[in-house]
Amino acid sequence: MSRLAPKRSRKAGLPPGTPVHLGERKSETTRLTLLQYNEQRAVEQEIKSPRECLALRDSPGVSWINVTGLHEVEKLAQFAETFGLHPLVLEDILNTDQRPKLEDYGEYLYIVIKRLSSGAPTSEISTEQISLILGRDLVISFLESDSGVFNGVKDCILNNRGRIRRLGADYLAYALMDAVVDNYFAIFEKLGERIEELQETIISHPTPASMQTLHALKRELLFLRKSVWPLREVVSGMQRGDSALIHKDTWIYLRDVYDHTIHVIDTIETYRDMLASMMDIYLSSLSIRLNEVMKVLTIIATIFLPLTFIVGIYGMNFHYMPELGWHWGYPLVLLVMAGIAVGMLVYFRRKKWI
Amino acid sequence: MSRLAPKRSRKAGLPPGTPVHLGERKSETTRLTLLQYNEQRAVEQEIKSPRECLALRDSPGVSWINVTGLHEVEKLAQFAETFGLHPLVLEDILNTDQRPKLEDYGEYLYIVIKRLSSGAPTSEISTEQISLILGRDLVISFLESDSGVFNGVKDCILNNRGRIRRLGADYLAYALMDAVVDNYFAIFEKLGERIEELQETIISHPTPASMQTLHALKRELLFLRKSVWPLREVVSGMQRGDSALIHKDTWIYLRDVYDHTIHVIDTIETYRDMLASMMDIYLSSLSIRLNEVMKVLTIIATIFLPLTFIVGIYGMNFHYMPELGWHWGYPLVLLVMAGIAVGMLVYFRRKKWI
Amino acid sequence: MSRLAPKRSRKAGLPPGTPVHLGERKSETTRLTLLQYNEQRAVEQEIKSPRECLALRDSPGVSWINVTGLHEVEKLAQFAETFGLHPLVLEDILNTDQRPKLEDYGEYLYIVIKRLSSGAPTSEISTEQISLILGRDLVISFLESDSGVFNGVKDCILNNRGRIRRLGADYLAYALMDAVVDNYFAIFEKLGERIEELQETIISHPTPASMQTLHALKRELLFLRKSVWPLREVVSGMQRGDSALIHKDTWIYLRDVYDHTIHVIDTIETYRDMLASMMDIYLSSLSIRLNEVMKVLTIIATIFLPLTFIVGIYGMNFHYMPELGWHWGYPLVLLVMAGIAVGMLVYFRRKKWI
Amino acid sequence: MSRLAPKRSRKAGLPPGTPVHLGERKSETTRLTLLQYNEQRAVEQEIKSPRECLALRDSPGVSWINVTGLHEVEKLAQFAETFGLHPLVLEDILNTDQRPKLEDYGEYLYIVIKRLSSGAPTSEISTEQISLILGRDLVISFLESDSGVFNGVKDCILNNRGRIRRLGADYLAYALMDAVVDNYFAIFEKLGERIEELQETIISHPTPASMQTLHALKRELLFLRKSVWPLREVVSGMQRGDSALIHKDTWIYLRDVYDHTIHVIDTIETYRDMLASMMDIYLSSLSIRLNEVMKVLTIIATIFLPLTFIVGIYGMNFHYMPELGWHWGYPLVLLVMAGIAVGMLVYFRRKKWI
Amino acid sequence: MSRLAPKRSRKAGLPPGTPVHLGERKSETTRLTLLQYNEQRAVEQEIKSPRECLALRDSPGVSWINVTGLHEVEKLAQFAETFGLHPLVLEDILNTDQRPKLEDYGEYLYIVIKRLSSGAPTSEISTEQISLILGRDLVISFLESDSGVFNGVKDCILNNRGRIRRLGADYLAYALMDAVVDNYFAIFEKLGERIEELQETIISHPTPASMQTLHALKRELLFLRKSVWPLREVVSGMQRGDSALIHKDTWIYLRDVYDHTIHVIDTIETYRDMLASMMDIYLSSLSIRLNEVMKVLTIIATIFLPLTFIVGIYGMNFHYMPELGWHWGYPLVLLVMAGIAVGMLVYFRRKKWI
Repeated sequence: MSRLAPKRSRKAGLPPGTPVHLGERKSETTRLTLLQYNEQRAVEQEIKSPRECLALRDSPGVSWINVTGLHEVEKLAQFAETFGLHPLVLEDILNTDQRPKLEDYGEYLYIVIKRLSSGAPTSEISTEQISLILGRDLVISFLESDSGVFNGVKDCILNNRGRIRRLGADYLAYALMDAVVDNYFAIFEKLGERIEELQETIISHPTPASMQTLHALKRELLFLRKSVWPLREVVSGMQRGDSALIHKDTWIYLRDVYDHTIHVIDTIETYRDMLASMMDIYLSSLSIRLNEVMKVLTIIATIFLPLTFIVGIYGMNFHYMPELGWHWGYPLVLLVMAGIAVGMLVYFRRKKWI
Repeated sequence: MSRLAPKRSRKAGLPPGTPVHLGERKSETTRLTLLQYNEQRAVEQEIKSPRECLALRDSPGVSWINVTGLHEVEKLAQFAETFGLHPLVLEDILNTDQRPKLEDYGEYLYIVIKRLSSGAPTSEISTEQISLILGRDLVISFLESDSGVFNGVKDCILNNRGRIRRLGADYLAYALMDAVVDNYFAIFEKLGERIEELQETIISHPTPASMQTLHALKRELLFLRKSVWPLREVVSGMQRGDSALIHKDTWIYLRDVYDHTIHVIDTIETYRDMLASMMDIYLSSLSIRLNEVMKVLTIIATIFLPLTFIVGIYGMNFHYMPELGWHWGYPLVLLVMAGIAVGMLVYFRRKKWI
Repeated sequence: MSRLAPKRSRKAGLPPGTPVHLGERKSETTRLTLLQYNEQRAVEQEIKSPRECLALRDSPGVSWINVTGLHEVEKLAQFAETFGLHPLVLEDILNTDQRPKLEDYGEYLYIVIKRLSSGAPTSEISTEQISLILGRDLVISFLESDSGVFNGVKDCILNNRGRIRRLGADYLAYALMDAVVDNYFAIFEKLGERIEELQETIISHPTPASMQTLHALKRELLFLRKSVWPLREVVSGMQRGDSALIHKDTWIYLRDVYDHTIHVIDTIETYRDMLASMMDIYLSSLSIRLNEVMKVLTIIATIFLPLTFIVGIYGMNFHYMPELGWHWGYPLVLLVMAGIAVGMLVYFRRKKWI
Repeated sequence: MSRLAPKRSRKAGLPPGTPVHLGERKSETTRLTLLQYNEQRAVEQEIKSPRECLALRDSPGVSWINVTGLHEVEKLAQFAETFGLHPLVLEDILNTDQRPKLEDYGEYLYIVIKRLSSGAPTSEISTEQISLILGRDLVISFLESDSGVFNGVKDCILNNRGRIRRLGADYLAYALMDAVVDNYFAIFEKLGERIEELQETIISHPTPASMQTLHALKRELLFLRKSVWPLREVVSGMQRGDSALIHKDTWIYLRDVYDHTIHVIDTIETYRDMLASMMDIYLSSLSIRLNEVMKVLTIIATIFLPLTFIVGIYGMNFHYMPELGWHWGYPLVLLVMAGIAVGMLVYFRRKKWI
Repeated sequence: MSRLAPKRSRKAGLPPGTPVHLGERKSETTRLTLLQYNEQRAVEQEIKSPRECLALRDSPGVSWINVTGLHEVEKLAQFAETFGLHPLVLEDILNTDQRPKLEDYGEYLYIVIKRLSSGAPTSEISTEQISLILGRDLVISFLESDSGVFNGVKDCILNNRGRIRRLGADYLAYALMDAVVDNYFAIFEKLGERIEELQETIISHPTPASMQTLHALKRELLFLRKSVWPLREVVSGMQRGDSALIHKDTWIYLRDVYDHTIHVIDTIETYRDMLASMMDIYLSSLSIRLNEVMKVLTIIATIFLPLTFIVGIYGMNFHYMPELGWHWGYPLVLLVMAGIAVGMLVYFRRKKWI
C-alpha cells in the first residue's frame, strides 16, 4: 500500500519550497561526478564541492553532472543554489514521490522520470525517481542510488560510440531518458511471464492463492500505470518545440522514446484486460466446481435415499407383512433395488451428469 | 447520505442573490482579523466593524482579512457591500455546499476550496468550505470555523519566514491554497491505512462487516472525489494567465499546487480501483467458502448414505436372509463397510477435495 | 418505460414543421398572460387574442408573455405567426419530448428546459417541458400546465423585489431558468432520502423487493439524467456570448445556473455510483445468506448422518452380534454417539461455522 | 451474426474502385425515376437510359433522380459516368455494408444513411442502405428496394404541400434524410415495447429463455448503434457550412435532424442501460431462487434427520434397553419427536426462513 | 502471451539507432525487387546490390523497391544508407514489434502497418510487419516474408489495370495499404464465424471448454485491436495534407482506406461487446444448472426423508406399539406414505419445480 499512497504529511506546515528529503534512504553518501565532452575528447572527474562546478562550466562542450544519493540535503541545497535552481525544483528532487513531469523554467527544463527495477522474478517492482535538469550545454541528473542505469550512456560517451559526442546536451538528456525507458521492456517481459504462468494455473487448477496473486498483479499494474502514464505527456511536451533548449534534430529521437512509451502503456492496458478476463475465468471455475460437488452429492443422495427407504419398509415390525414370509422376498427386494439404482444411473447419464 | 446530496430546498423561491446561510453552524460568532504586511513589517489586529477596513485599505503592502464563522449573515452582508462583492459571491460564500470553483469578477477573483478533516482514525472525513477573495493587494478568506488551517501561513508572515513577505497578494492566496492542499496528504494517508487494513481483513477472514466497511469507504471516496476533482480546474484556471491579479512569477507556485492536486486525484482513482478489486476478492471468498461447506456436506453424505443403506439391508425382517445366520456375517459387513468408507476417502483425496 | 422511449410515430409521414401536439394533455385550455414592466411599474393582464400582443409590443420595458397549455394547436400556430416564430420552433414547443436545448434563430433564442415534479415522496418523478423564447425586450414562456413554477419570479416583478425590474429580458430569462433549476434540488433531496432508506433496508434485511426498488431508482436516474445533462450545454451556450440578446452583465448570473446544473449532474452521478454499490451489497448478501443456509444443512447432516449409521448398525438382525448382549452396550453406544456429536460441534466451532 | 460482421472478402484482390454489388439482392430490376420541379410545376417520369438525364439537366428547377435496385451493375456504372461520379462513390453505393457517412467531392456531396425496418413486432430489425448525391440543383437517391420510404416527400412535391417546392436541392436532401430518421422513432417504439415486456417477464417469472431474449435485444441494439451513431457526424458535418451546396437557410432544418439523431442515440444508450440492469435482476433472481430451493431442503433435512436418528435408536436390538419395556415409551418418544419438530419450525420462523 | 508483451530486452544497453533484427525469422534470404513504371511501360527486375538502385533512381516514372526478409541486417543497413534513411527508421524496420505508425522525415514518409494472417480456420491470427517508405517518385516496402500480399498490386501495374500506372508514388503507397487492409475483412469474417459458433455452443450446451475458447477469442481481439487501432491515426495523418509527398487527388483514396479501418475497428468493438455478453450467458447458465441440480436433490430428499422417518417409527422395538398388531397396519402405512409422496409432488408441481 505504501507504494500507492502519498506519504507527505511530514512536510505539512512547512513553508513551500523548504527542502526536505521524503523517501527511502537508498544511498549512504551523496556523490557528484562531472563528465565533460565534445567531439574531440571526454573527461570524467569527481566533484568534491559545488564550487568546482562553477569554474568548469565555462569550458566548451557538454557538461553532464551526475548526482547520486539524495539525503545530504545541505549539500544539495548549496549545489542547487550554485546552479540557480528554483527552490521548488530542489523540493521536488528531494521528494521522491513525484509523478513523471516536465517543467519549463526558461533557463532550464526540469524533467522527472521513474526507473523501474525488480530483484527476483517474483518480487515486487520498485521505482526510483530520476530528476534531470537540461540547461544550455548542461545536463544534471539526480539519482536516488547508484543503480548503474546510465552506465551504457557513459560508455558511449567515453568510448565515442554512436552519435552522442557529436550532438548537444538535449541529445544527452534524450539518451538518458531512452536508457530508462528501454529498461521498462525487461520489467514488462518479466511481468508478462508472471501473468502467463498465473493464467495457466487459473485455467488448469485455480486456488484461492491464485486469486491473491491476481490481486497482487493488479496492484502492481496500478502502480506501474502511475509511473508510466504521465511519461507520455512529458515526452510529447519536449517534442512540442516550446523550449529553445531542445533542437529540432532531437525531436526525431524524442518521437522514438514517445513510441516506446506508448508501447509500454499499450502493454499495461493489455495486461489489465487480461487480468480482468482471468478474474472471470477464476469466478466461473468456482461456479463450475460447485456444480461438480453438488452433482456428486445429488447423485449419491438420489440413489441411496430411495433404497434406504425401501430397506426401511422391510425393517418395520408389523406383525402382518406378507412379503417378509416369502422365500424369494429378500432376493427380490435386492433385485428391485439394483434395478432402481441402475435406472437412476441411466437417468443421470442421459442428463450428462456423469 | 446527507454529505452527498445537495440540501438547498430551503432557498427555493427566494430571488437569486439572497444571502442565506446553508450548512452546519460550526462556529458561534463571526470574527474578522486583519493582517497587514510588507517586506519591512507585519501587523495583526482584530476588526470590530467592516468600516475599519476601508481606512486600512489605503495603507501600502498586502492586507489579509480572515473571516471565521459564517452564520452572522447581516454582518457579512454589510462587510461584502463595503468591499463591493457581488451578491452572488456572498450567496456562494454562505452556501457551504459549493463545488471548488474559480470565478473571475474582474476586480477580484472568487475561489472556493474545501478543507478536509477527520477526527479519529476510523471516523468519517468531513469538509469545510473555504472561500478566498483575491483582489489588488488584498486577500479575504472566509472560514466556517477556526480550525487553525492557516496558522502556518500566519506564522511565516509574522516571523518573516520564507519568501512570503517579499511577494504580493497572489502569493498569499497561493500559500493559503497550498496549506489546504498539503493537508489532503495527511487525510489520504489515514484513508490509505484504513484501506490497507480492510484489505488484510478481506484476504484473511472476510465477514459481512468488511463488506459494509468497503461500502462505507467507497462512499467516502465518492465524497472526496467531489471535493477534490474540481480543484484541478480551479488551479489550472488560475495558472492560465487570464487575470492580471496573478503575476507570472506566481505561476510556478500554482503549478506546484496543481501537481499536488493531480497527485491526490491519482490517489483517489487508485483507491477506487483497489476497492473494486477488494470487492471481487470478497465475492470470490464467499464462493470459495460455499464450496468448502458443500464439500464437507458431500463427503459426509457420500460416505454415510451408502453405509446406512447397507446396515438398513441387514435390519430387514425377512424370514429368509441367509447372511443373518452366518457366524462371520456381522464382522464381514463391518469390514465391507470400512472398505467402502476408505475407498470413498481415497476417491475424494484423488479429486483433491480433502 | 413510456417515459424513456420516444413516442413520435404519430408524426411519421407529415412534412417537416407541421404543428402537432405530442405529449399528455396536462391543461384544459390555453391561457396567455402578459406581464409588462420597467423600473417604474409592472402591469399584468390576460390576453384573449394574439393580435393584442402586437400593439403592446411597442410600449417600452420588458414584456413577458406566459402561455399555459399546449393542445390548442390552432391558437398557438396563430400566435407563433404573429411573433414570427419559425415553424420548427412551434413544432418543438408542441412536441413535449424534446431534450433541453438552445437554438439561436438570430432574432430570438429558443430554449427548452425541463421542470421536474414528484407528487408523493415515493411516487415517480415526472417532467414537464418549458419552452422559452428570448427576443429583444421580450420573453415568451410556454408551459404544459399551470404548476406555479414561475410564481416566485412573478412576485419579484410585481412587488419589485430583487434586481429584476432594473434589468432586461435576458435577466428575466435567467430568472425563469433559475426558478426551474432551483426546484431540482428539492426533487433530488427527496430522491436522496429514498436512496438512503433503500440503503438501510439492503444492509439490514434485503429482500427481492429491495432489488426491484433499486431497479426502479436506477431507471428514475436514467430518466433524470436525460432531462438534466443537456441543460449544461444549454447554459454554457448562453454564456458563450455568441448572441447579442444576452448582455455581458447577465453572464455572471448564468454562470450561477451553470454551477447549479453541474451540482445536480454531480449528484446524479454520485447516486448512480451508490446504486451500483448497493447492487453489489445486495448480491453479496444473497451469497452470504446461501452460505448461512448451507452451513445449517451441513452441520445437521454431518452430525446426524454418522449417528444414524451407528444406530443402524445395532438395528441389524445378525444372529451373532456380541455387543447386543452386553449389559452396558446400549449406554455405551449412546455415550459414543454423544462423543461424536460433541466432537463435531467442537470441529465446527473451530472452523468458525457456529 | 452476419449483420454484425463485414462480408467483403469477395472483393479482396480487385483494384480499388471496381464496382461490385455486395449485399442481398432486394429488388429485381433497377428502376430510375426523374422528378423535376420548381415553384410552378412538378413533373415525374421514368428514365429508360442514363442519356435521357443529360438533356433534362439543363432545364431549370430541381431534379431528383431516384434509383431503386442496385444489382444491375453495368447500368449503374454507365449512369455514374454520365453524372461524373467518382469510381469510389459507385463502389460505395453498391457495397451496402457502409457506415453512414458524408463525403465532399467538391462538385457534389455523397451521403450514406441507413433505413431501418422491422416486419412483425417480434422479428429482427433489418437495414437498407440509402445513398444520396447532392449536386447543384440535383439530388440522386439510390435505394436497395422500393420500400416507399420517400413516398411522403414525393407527395409533398407533387401536391405542393409544405415549403419544399419553393426551396432548393439541399432542402430536398434534408427532406429525404428527415423521412428516414423520422421512421427510426417507430422502430424504437416497437423495440421499447419489447424491452418493457421482457422487463415484466424478468421481474415476475424469469426463465432461461428471457436470458436469450435479453441477449438478442442486446445484439439488436449493438446493430442499431452501428447504424445510427455515425449519422450524428454526417448531419453535423452538413451543418458545419463547409460546402457551398448547402445554403445557410437549410442549416436550421439540419439542426432539427441532428436533434432527432441525438434523441435516438440517447434512447439507444438508455435501452442499453436498462438491459444491463435487467441482466442484474435476472442473475439476482437466479440467486434468490437457489436460496429458496436450499431453504426447503435445509428445513426438511434439519427436521427429519434428527427424528430419523431417534427412531433409529429404538430400532436397535440391544438386549438391555429399559425404555423399550416402558408402557408409555412409544407415545413418549412420539411426543418428544413432535416437540423437536415444532421447536425446529419455530426456530426457522424466527430466522424468517418460513 | 508472447504476442501481447514486448520482447525488446535483447536491445537494452545498446546505443539508440543500432540496427538489430527483433522478431521471428520468417524468410531465409533478403530479396530486393525493383519495379519501375510510368504510363507507357513497366519493368520488373531483381536487385543484387543496393548500388544498382542509385543508377536506376534517375530514370523517369515511379520506382517501387520491394524488400522481402529482414534478418540480413548488414545488407539492409547498406541499403538504408544508400537511400539516406535515418538510423531510427532502419531500427524500426528491423524491430517487427512496432505499432502501426506514420513518421514524416521531410524527404520521405515512414509508414508501419500490420498484415494479418490465419492459417486454419481455428488457428490463431498472426501478424507481419510491413514498412513503407514513401519518397519522391519512390516507394520502398519491407516485408518479413514473401506472403504474396502485394501480388494484386504488382499485377495491376504490369498489366496496366486500373488507374495505377497514370498516378504517382503516393497512389502506389495507397494501393499497397489498401491491399493490406482489404485482407482484414477476410480475417474478421473467419473470426466472426468462430464467435458465432461459440455463441451457439454457449446457448445450447455450455462447457468449461467454451469458457476457455471465449477467453482465447478475447485475447485474439485484444491482439487485433493493438494492430488495427493505431492504423486509424496513420491514415488520417496521411490525409491531413501536411506532407507535400501526398497529392490532394490521393486524399479521396486515403479516405476510403480510413473508412475501411473505421469499419474494422467498429467490428472489433462489436465483437468485444458480444463476447462480454456471451460471458454473461455462460455464467448465468452455470447458475441455472446449479439450480437444476439442487432442485433434483431437494425433491428427492423432501420426498424420501419423511418417508424414511415413518418406516423408521415402525421399525422401533417398543414392546407396546398397538399399530404393529393391527391387521391393516402395514397397508395403511404404505397408503399414508403414498399420499405424502403424491402430496409433495403436487406441491413441487405447483411451485413449477417439476
